[in-house]
Amino acid sequence: MEPLKSPSLSGEIAGTDRISIQRVTRDGKQATEDIVAREMPLTIIFNNQELVTLLCSPGDLNSLAAGFLYSEGLLEKREDIKRVLVDEDKGIVRVETVQDTDMPAELLFKRMITSGCGRGASFYSAADVKNRHQVESQATVSASRVLSLVQEFQHLSPLYRATGGVHSAALYGAGGILAFNEDIGRHNAVDKIFGECLLKGIITEGQLMVISGRISSEILLKVAKRNVPIIVSVSAPTDLAVRLAGELGITLLGFVRGKHANIYTNEWRITSDAK
Amino acid sequence: MEPLKSPSLSGEIAGTDRISIQRVTRDGKQATEDIVAREMPLTIIFNNQELVTLLCSPGDLNSLAAGFLYSEGLLEKREDIKRVLVDEDKGIVRVETVQDTDMPAELLFKRMITSGCGRGASFYSAADVKNRHQVESQATVSASRVLSLVQEFQHLSPLYRATGGVHSAALYGAGGILAFNEDIGRHNAVDKIFGECLLKGIITEGQLMVISGRISSEILLKVAKRNVPIIVSVSAPTDLAVRLAGELGITLLGFVRGKHANIYTNEWRITSDAK
Repeated sequence: MEPLKSPSLSGEIAGTDRISIQRVTRDGKQATEDIVAREMPLTIIFNNQELVTLLCSPGDLNSLAAGFLYSEGLLEKREDIKRVLVDEDKGIVRVETVQDTDMPAELLFKRMITSGCGRGASFYSAADVKNRHQVESQATVSASRVLSLVQEFQHLSPLYRATGGVHSAALYGAGGILAFNEDIGRHNAVDKIFGECLLKGIITEGQLMVISGRISSEILLKVAKRNVPIIVSVSAPTDLAVRLAGELGITLLGFVRGKHANIYTNEWRITSDAK
Repeated sequence: MEPLKSPSLSGEIAGTDRISIQRVTRDGKQATEDIVAREMPLTIIFNNQELVTLLCSPGDLNSLAAGFLYSEGLLEKREDIKRVLVDEDKGIVRVETVQDTDMPAELLFKRMITSGCGRGASFYSAADVKNRHQVESQATVSASRVLSLVQEFQHLSPLYRATGGVHSAALYGAGGILAFNEDIGRHNAVDKIFGECLLKGIITEGQLMVISGRISSEILLKVAKRNVPIIVSVSAPTDLAVRLAGELGITLLGFVRGKHANIYTNEWRITSDAK
């Protein structure tokens, strides 16, 4: 299997470093160069309270912060935000809200622990799932459009082509692509998309999201929270993501590659092309 | 590009669910079955204190809990552990230590936020890196052995072959494989390995680790903490992982595929076969 990346493609790709490496085979070593994805710590300060440090790719850090805070339930809408100040060199984003939410530190910490990257007990009891609203959108899309979008999507990421080391995500509407982003973190790529939508007032309801990485329960819940009815992955879903998608009314497709795709839930939204 | 998985292989693979899906092409839909990786929340209760909930694959939850607590600095050695009680159905692991560490809740929460999956500010300042000890091992390995190990490694995972949705990790010693595990979470797969080593008294110092997924800074720091001098990935490293590996004396290989590999740091540990 050949490497997925083509270092030759990537002269000056944002978010990468060019480094000296040794290329080794059974026959010996040879000095060469490689392009690697940058990774940086980003501390989010929310109303003067240090909230969390994420490891992420540089770029669109305001979107990442807004999307993360939205996913965590600390922001509801664009109008909640007074200002977002990014200091990329220091790895700090300050987000201030119109109403200076004075949350007890312990509650805040508790929230953070039980959600986010790889952590999320609070959502998983049946009761909690019932409290989450259903995605009611009647939007449909044809199978051939899904296959075409994914083909297009797989050519969008210069960072992935250069480094093989990032996840990407895109939001599509009836007229075409609305947002695209990529990050070393699967969750971050999705948060960057939804953060951009929040900051720019892009409507997410009724749209279609494509992601390169696996669909776990947390990705599914982020998508549900933004009322996106169709999520499509190049890769695999987990059983929990499939169950939640079924219950919340979301159409989930996985392994969308070449000329076929798996529809895991709510298949009525995927129409045949004869329609 | 063909799907990476072969559902036909997977009669009764542990950690999977068989579900009904629709397979769709431009020509229409067809009912079929698919195998998906299970995902479950696991709450770790440490000395009667609810510590964290991870999303993970079922299986070896005692190893996961021990490895996670070790990575977080809450366990140092096997003798610290009084007992580990796993209730897989409820998704709970209770770990009790000989000395009932009574950590202030706020400190504990603070720790958890700044480390773990996708979060890790505390380690990233130069001072912190300096405090971490160097990996001094003089172990070397031949290029051809690395290439052979990775080929073997890629055939070890029934869960990946069945679902395409998990990450795997293995620890190799001079005599062959010491531990293998897989999980929907990249960090969890590594924590399961080191947890098993901790519980069974398997020496990690001087060994070689292979992982399927990307090497980010947090994976690198977990490996450094266990004095593993050589880490090998089928996939890409980030720039931060490369920098830390260089500083901490770890040999990092990436894109080990077929007959070649990239050596990013401390290449002296990879010998040519003439040796």
